[in-house]
Amino acid sequence: MPKGRKVRVIDPKGKQVADFLAFNAVEPREFLSTGATIDNNGSLYIKVGQHLYSNLYRPMLRVTADTVGAHDLLHPPCSPAMYRCQYGITGPHPSCHENFKKALAEYGLDESCIWTPFNIFMNTRVHEDGRLEIKEPLSRAGDYIELEAMFDLIVAVTACSVEESSCNAGRCGPIKIEIY
Amino acid sequence: MPKGRKVRVIDPKGKQVADFLAFNAVEPREFLSTGATIDNNGSLYIKVGQHLYSNLYRPMLRVTADTVGAHDLLHPPCSPAMYRCQYGITGPHPSCHENFKKALAEYGLDESCIWTPFNIFMNTRVHEDGRLEIKEPLSRAGDYIELEAMFDLIVAVTACSVEESSCNAGRCGPIKIEIY
Repeated sequence: MPKGRKVRVIDPKGKQVADFLAFNAVEPREFLSTGATIDNNGSLYIKVGQHLYSNLYRPMLRVTADTVGAHDLLHPPCSPAMYRCQYGITGPHPSCHENFKKALAEYGLDESCIWTPFNIFMNTRVHEDGRLEIKEPLSRAGDYIELEAMFDLIVAVTACSVEESSCNAGRCGPIKIEIY
Repeated sequence: MPKGRKVRVIDPKGKQVADFLAFNAVEPREFLSTGATIDNNGSLYIKVGQHLYSNLYRPMLRVTADTVGAHDLLHPPCSPAMYRCQYGITGPHPSCHENFKKALAEYGLDESCIWTPFNIFMNTRVHEDGRLEIKEPLSRAGDYIELEAMFDLIVAVTACSVEESSCNAGRCGPIKIEIY
């Protein structure tokens, strides 16, 4: 995704989370850091006009449009380890972590590159006492977020595989990607 | 730090943050994940009796005592990139990231192993709207947290270097470590 291009992540049917990673295309040791993003914005949430930052505290993507306004910067991608721990699932189960691993391998990036993603449409609510609630996404059919690349990027997106909680309202659907 | 041992991280003078990382001593690709910790505990904060989890969603350290009760699981370690971005500091400045990098090199771990630490005594308060405030630590002279190793660990701790905000109440002091 070259500098200046915009990626639109669309929820075609509604209530589907999309996990999103990004890397500097030239030097992938610079990558999207949800921690630096939370730190620089002083918030767990992100708004139109704000940036997602890299681990080098540089603006990496700018939010140029957002029809939903509720996303998550806290949760790791779902993974075989998470399904085992939280749901007792030991057999095969699709996961964001495995999807990222397969897709990033084509770019020479191994799973050590998979940090906490920007979890688009994931509706994590926080209380003053720090308690978190994962509620159904607010996204309805056709809703989207649009992100502009601040420099040349490798971007990976996966529709989240969790059917066991309200994360995706109990069932999984597609995610559509458009690049402008 | 062998399984069953306890590390006590002590703030001898008060209001000093200690950044804390941990790795599986046998397979350091398993490491302390603040994301998995937040996910499994359903909270931004951690209490006595709860665990810090690894990226494989396994209990890694148990909080066995805590005289403060206000710590942070959100912020990256301070780094040259952070000082440049947030304070315009381009010259030398001590940082948690550089301290970790130096210490971990002795164990064959490079800086790609430095994830978000458990920021002990860092008093990050959250509001319902997601806004974060970094307040002065609540720790007074002699306060501590005690963590028990669930398996053999490599642990790294650094006194945080930020003098530019209320993170360490505007000045830096020592951190004391005891292993039981």
